[in-house]
Amino acid sequence: MTPTATTSTGPQPPADLLITGCTVLTHDDQERIGFAQDAAIVVRGGIVEEVTSAEAVAGRAAAERIDARGQVALPGLINCHTHAPMVALRGLAEDLPTEEWFNDVVWPVESNLTDRDVELGARLACAEMIMGGVTCFADHYFAMDAVAAVVAECGMRALLGEAFFSSQGPEGRQRSLEFALRYAGAADGRITTALAPHAPYTVADADLTATAELARTHGLPVHVHAAENRDQTDASLARHGVTPIEVLSRTGILDTDVLLAHGTGIAESDLPLLERASGRTAVATAPRGYLKFAWPTTTPVRALRAIGIPVGLATDGAASNNSLDVWESMALTSLIQKSTEGDPRWMTSRQALHHATLQSARAVGLGDSVGGIAPGRRADIALVDLTGPHTQPVHDLAATLVHSARSADVRTTVVDGRILMRDRQLLTLDVAKTVRELGERLPALVDRSHGRRIQDYDT
Amino acid sequence: MTPTATTSTGPQPPADLLITGCTVLTHDDQERIGFAQDAAIVVRGGIVEEVTSAEAVAGRAAAERIDARGQVALPGLINCHTHAPMVALRGLAEDLPTEEWFNDVVWPVESNLTDRDVELGARLACAEMIMGGVTCFADHYFAMDAVAAVVAECGMRALLGEAFFSSQGPEGRQRSLEFALRYAGAADGRITTALAPHAPYTVADADLTATAELARTHGLPVHVHAAENRDQTDASLARHGVTPIEVLSRTGILDTDVLLAHGTGIAESDLPLLERASGRTAVATAPRGYLKFAWPTTTPVRALRAIGIPVGLATDGAASNNSLDVWESMALTSLIQKSTEGDPRWMTSRQALHHATLQSARAVGLGDSVGGIAPGRRADIALVDLTGPHTQPVHDLAATLVHSARSADVRTTVVDGRILMRDRQLLTLDVAKTVRELGERLPALVDRSHGRRIQDYDT
Repeated sequence: MTPTATTSTGPQPPADLLITGCTVLTHDDQERIGFAQDAAIVVRGGIVEEVTSAEAVAGRAAAERIDARGQVALPGLINCHTHAPMVALRGLAEDLPTEEWFNDVVWPVESNLTDRDVELGARLACAEMIMGGVTCFADHYFAMDAVAAVVAECGMRALLGEAFFSSQGPEGRQRSLEFALRYAGAADGRITTALAPHAPYTVADADLTATAELARTHGLPVHVHAAENRDQTDASLARHGVTPIEVLSRTGILDTDVLLAHGTGIAESDLPLLERASGRTAVATAPRGYLKFAWPTTTPVRALRAIGIPVGLATDGAASNNSLDVWESMALTSLIQKSTEGDPRWMTSRQALHHATLQSARAVGLGDSVGGIAPGRRADIALVDLTGPHTQPVHDLAATLVHSARSADVRTTVVDGRILMRDRQLLTLDVAKTVRELGERLPALVDRSHGRRIQDYDT
Repeated sequence: MTPTATTSTGPQPPADLLITGCTVLTHDDQERIGFAQDAAIVVRGGIVEEVTSAEAVAGRAAAERIDARGQVALPGLINCHTHAPMVALRGLAEDLPTEEWFNDVVWPVESNLTDRDVELGARLACAEMIMGGVTCFADHYFAMDAVAAVVAECGMRALLGEAFFSSQGPEGRQRSLEFALRYAGAADGRITTALAPHAPYTVADADLTATAELARTHGLPVHVHAAENRDQTDASLARHGVTPIEVLSRTGILDTDVLLAHGTGIAESDLPLLERASGRTAVATAPRGYLKFAWPTTTPVRALRAIGIPVGLATDGAASNNSLDVWESMALTSLIQKSTEGDPRWMTSRQALHHATLQSARAVGLGDSVGGIAPGRRADIALVDLTGPHTQPVHDLAATLVHSARSADVRTTVVDGRILMRDRQLLTLDVAKTVRELGERLPALVDRSHGRRIQDYDT
């Protein structure tokens, strides 16, 4: 594939950032994945101005340069559903069924959460994500002002939503709205926002209907857990005679721009509803946790693709996934989809890379601005080193990226043209300091002697 | 847990290697996983002489010292079934069913193999494994003299077997025997050997019977692919009226010390045969490839454990697994076993670490000498850095190791007390030089225009 070159006449003004000598992952006009070799990326004003050959930019002036020979430039990875601050609980609730995980550990502990805990957790989470080539994440949690502050500080991009349950009364929904309105477009436009009802089993129909109404009125998307597992779907059918997706349909949520987390309990009969949804509907899949919880199914990616629904990659929170490693989610999505469909030809590495790039960008509502390295798109880029023994030789670059490379192979992470990690050195966050302060707060955070919990899990 | 300290009187002779300040993974007398904090490991003559407190060795003389504060010392990982030189084919045969993978790509390409290809592949493979904390591997391939030379050179430990098919005539079996006798105890005892019939579907019963006889005569173990997948079991039943495990039983292979690769097609009815086997029987599981090939089942680890059979961790070759990352096999074994059994309480991180340590050591016939960090055992150690944001905070060290840490977190790898990688720098292998020469040879290696293959896959 030949890199796109623009014809230039006369000397050009210095670029903000020039990345040279790398192989660039590209999409053609059919959205097929390709690779431009010995290429260069010119960035100005936070935007990719040009993707051309390394030769064409020889001698070009730039405020900042990265010699990326031996590396591959990918669109920054997008974590389409997480609870970033939950890294503070990483490893705290192991080997438990979903109900005990929620009721005996996570929800009791979350009743102790302070803004400072959330801030420190978010900072640690952003450090982990930047080191794994993640440039954008969709977060669904509490005390989200603290997360927004960290996003502003560390330079990442994020779709943020303040979670609420009906058990909080109408104030929960109101806080979610106020957060969404206050932070939309914050951090130089890197923050976008969503309304964030927790799930159909924790938010009553009337509340969902009101949320859909607010979404339409204010032009906001909705980010919600939906049909997370088969048990939830079965319980919903038994109690209400409808599936969780039917609940979202009849409450109008599916007429908004909605990001559905997990969906492993999506029923065959839900597919026509999703297909007919008038909003922009997407699903986020985080397969590691489904295996760990021993859920009987995974996200029905093939069925969703057949009806045109983008499926983005995600990690969920680190209290269930144990990492925020989107690279691992990409590899696992390929492996688990092959296994689940019983078809080794399905979910090729190129398909997985399509999920990781354009589909993930669409899932978080940024389909026009990120997810690809192309003129006019935001300069969100991960540079990946493939010189390690585990990524050599390269017979099929897409396969090398998906099945051999690891998040630790990301050398450099760029968001909006700003370098957030360079040669594995984080430039905007201090991990040791964060870990130290978080460590001091952990005994109070994990105390469950009070017997409270923020919510009951009862599908 | 208190580290084991020996009482010392008077000054001691200098140790060969002193590792201080780390947390050491230990096994108690019930083989339960524990962790000794702020510990020290004293190595002399390639053997762990003492595991004690860092304080106890302050000022102790040593030829070589490693300050391992912030790191965890694990028994070196063991790759219980691989075809190391197949890293040369990494990514060459993607998204194919097993039969096409063998017949259309791998076996045609392997008909081109030269000793030099095998040597370069083995060198790259050993580099990858050392960088992932792997200290020992069980290899089953061709031109194994070349692999043995690389093992001798790079300092790893290995159980090596020269693979054979009945299609090679009796010479195949004879070469396997000669290799096993020639290299047993080579490389200062780091090389042990096995007879290596390929599989019941490629080696005739008479050949298996003869192999079992040779194993008994010469005191050699057998390493063989067995009931790799359900199709093989079904085909064996249809053609011969017996399962692959029954074939191994009636040919006497199960009366030898046998390492069975994969076993995802082990039938319920095979379990009593395996339980009654008079030899030391073990199974190696490499779950990534089973998912990638979309095999319907995985290794029945729970059933095998119930009858006392050790299950070691493995990667298979990189042409199917795409890496030799045993750390990933450990995490995937935990996840896939939970999922397959429908039980999130099964295959805890401590269970996974037991598979990675003592069970893997038993699987490769080294249960008395490696697999644990304890006085008298060989000093095969991986030092893992847990200061990265993705491994903090630590609520449960076993969970952090299995579900959050990655092979790239291994800082230092030691075999027989010799440092093979220090702070991510390989000390015994040159990756760039190996990749360069291998790259020049790849066009000839991957040529399939001749239409030959070394064997037909026809279960």
